Amino acid sequence: MVARAGIVVTGTEVLTGRVPDRNGPWLAEALRRLGVDVGHVVVVGDRPDDLSAALRFLADTGADLVITTGGLGPTADDLTAQLVGQVQGRAPELDVALEGRITEIVARLSRDRGWRMDPGATAAGTRKQAVVPAGAEVIEPVGTAPGLVVPVADGRTGPPVLVLPGPPGELRGMWPAALESPRVRAALAGATELRQRTVRLWGTPESELAATLRGLEGTLDGLEITTCLRGGELEVVTRFGPEHQAGYDALVAAVHGAHGSTVFSTDGAEVDELLARALDTRGWTIATAESCTAGMLVARLTDPAGSSVRVLGGIASYSNGVKTAALGVPAELIDALGAVSAEVAVAMASGVRERLGADVGVGITGIAGPGGGSADKPVGLVHVCVQSPLRSVSRELHVPGGRADVRERTVRVVLQLLLELVAP
Amino acid sequence: MVARAGIVVTGTEVLTGRVPDRNGPWLAEALRRLGVDVGHVVVVGDRPDDLSAALRFLADTGADLVITTGGLGPTADDLTAQLVGQVQGRAPELDVALEGRITEIVARLSRDRGWRMDPGATAAGTRKQAVVPAGAEVIEPVGTAPGLVVPVADGRTGPPVLVLPGPPGELRGMWPAALESPRVRAALAGATELRQRTVRLWGTPESELAATLRGLEGTLDGLEITTCLRGGELEVVTRFGPEHQAGYDALVAAVHGAHGSTVFSTDGAEVDELLARALDTRGWTIATAESCTAGMLVARLTDPAGSSVRVLGGIASYSNGVKTAALGVPAELIDALGAVSAEVAVAMASGVRERLGADVGVGITGIAGPGGGSADKPVGLVHVCVQSPLRSVSRELHVPGGRADVRERTVRVVLQLLLELVAP
Repeated sequence: MVARAGIVVTGTEVLTGRVPDRNGPWLAEALRRLGVDVGHVVVVGDRPDDLSAALRFLADTGADLVITTGGLGPTADDLTAQLVGQVQGRAPELDVALEGRITEIVARLSRDRGWRMDPGATAAGTRKQAVVPAGAEVIEPVGTAPGLVVPVADGRTGPPVLVLPGPPGELRGMWPAALESPRVRAALAGATELRQRTVRLWGTPESELAATLRGLEGTLDGLEITTCLRGGELEVVTRFGPEHQAGYDALVAAVHGAHGSTVFSTDGAEVDELLARALDTRGWTIATAESCTAGMLVARLTDPAGSSVRVLGGIASYSNGVKTAALGVPAELIDALGAVSAEVAVAMASGVRERLGADVGVGITGIAGPGGGSADKPVGLVHVCVQSPLRSVSRELHVPGGRADVRERTVRVVLQLLLELVAP
Repeated sequence: MVARAGIVVTGTEVLTGRVPDRNGPWLAEALRRLGVDVGHVVVVGDRPDDLSAALRFLADTGADLVITTGGLGPTADDLTAQLVGQVQGRAPELDVALEGRITEIVARLSRDRGWRMDPGATAAGTRKQAVVPAGAEVIEPVGTAPGLVVPVADGRTGPPVLVLPGPPGELRGMWPAALESPRVRAALAGATELRQRTVRLWGTPESELAATLRGLEGTLDGLEITTCLRGGELEVVTRFGPEHQAGYDALVAAVHGAHGSTVFSTDGAEVDELLARALDTRGWTIATAESCTAGMLVARLTDPAGSSVRVLGGIASYSNGVKTAALGVPAELIDALGAVSAEVAVAMASGVRERLGADVGVGITGIAGPGGGSADKPVGLVHVCVQSPLRSVSRELHVPGGRADVRERTVRVVLQLLLELVAP
């Protein structure tokens, strides 16, 4: 039996997309590493009945552990602890010692951050956070909200509920302590190792890969394979127990055999990481000149820690004046051919390489829309150029979708072009 | 009776967070505008039983309509149409006319994009996409996957299921046609207008606001209020029927009364939009010099369509050499005080203002970590400077969290500083 968990993410702000959910995916991945299978992530608003229904649903799916995130704050709409208690059959109870500890934490935070707090409001909020279901185990706060492990009341059956706060830093900080709870350990006792491996392809259509997989039917027992296309990149993720490693190796060999030239990653690495490794192997630095993507590429190149060894910087030349002043693109070139042209992309790449003293330069100029397109140069037309000390590669892209899609997909294509340019 | 809907988002890639869910929030918001209430968004992987369980759960919550996204592709792990048919009691059936239409679409796409496709694989994928539950209504594809409206089998009770594809562009493109389906219209017939309004504050702690709300208890009938703190910005979202407008107006007046100086938006506008409006009112242009955030700010400033009227560009000066060469920050200043210093932030702001010829300049220099910190200058220390033709404002920030948090929160603080600088 594989241990299974279900996750409830609470908060109207998440349900309506005002805040993206960073906890559900993080918990799903953390549990997968432990060999625990996650069947559902249920996002609910702040309505009591909806949360209770979600908790009962996950218990009914046979989950060994239910985890909730959010709804532990000092405000009246934060009801998770109370509702979990109700569903588990445990009455609310003020934990006086916990109230004291939270009071100390809040006092310390206020001092450190120079907050001026209304004492009455603070005390009321603290007391609310210290009211917990009777018999629940408390996980000490990283912020101000305590976590809880709430077993079902005696005489009932059902999984325990692990209650964690919503701020991702607090949730992640409390995760190790949560895993040490005896009730959580018992719930996840059935966990067995589940491997997850990823193969990434660039340029193979999904239907071609599907044909390859159909040809392997019968040899794929024990492999749970999912494929996913994003912006031209085809991702094949396989999950399996250790006993099926040989079957997985055969699958990878078959994908290599059929689509070898488009396979760019078999160790899970994303294109960003492969590019960083390739640049570091060469000892090359990089600088970017971006028009329609205006900083998105350089922001992404500097995402990883330590990126300053390879990234010198970038110039977002949104206006033509900046293309000329900061990158040295001749104004006559822009006048004659337009800012969105192959020649300007080349001039931007070589300009930023030279001015910033980088080994590798990138030029991106295009029409992200929705305005600015013409019959000749429609929205989605993007000219890109990547240059190394060894060669220069230019591409004319026709990127589908709206403004955000054009910008994001252009960055993705350029990362792949850079990888091809730099890979040894 | 308010009409209610439930949403199922399918895909292991979404469940595990490899791909963020863009459909659940979009649908929840589109439904809210129609006056339809969404109680749950359930994310499931590609496992058949998990999807079936989610469909039954949402029907049991009393939803008038269930919407699924994803799982309609040509590969074998895309099972949504088949499983929805099973749950609704309808057998799969090849729709020959639909198969013909999808064949034409695929042929056209292949021609336009120059794909080389294996004819056998393509035909198998197309046929799979044309197998639909008997009696389902087909919504014509925007990509290659058709949508479906699948009612329960005769003699049973339960909500119809609206089946939509996963790619956001396709889903959004097919939404108007889905709303015209007679079965969808009938399911949502109970929809009544539900207003949603947002107040945003910058600098009021959540517990202070909670105290204000507690003081109003008894006068808040019919208002569903949620508060959410993100990176220092406090968001108060209220949903109510038109008959409670007066109550909402009183709430806003009370929040203004208690926290007026920190209320920066009452019409739902985000800081980005307010800043854009303020710049345009002044007729000012802006340019950025970013070190630790390396392009994130300028990328965000250029998110909205038409941003070229106010954004000239930006320089991501990740290395000290670029700070000197591209921004004119004196090398001696960096040597004497370090790249992360108030003086360098000022020099970056004035340098980029001058070199790019902008009215407003921004300088950001800090230590995003995890490396590079010291006792004097720890990770999270960020110096920022914003300058207009009228004044210059500098701030020393101590931003909590990991590398990504430091970068994101810095951008948010700078947007608020810019709004204060520019607002008339």
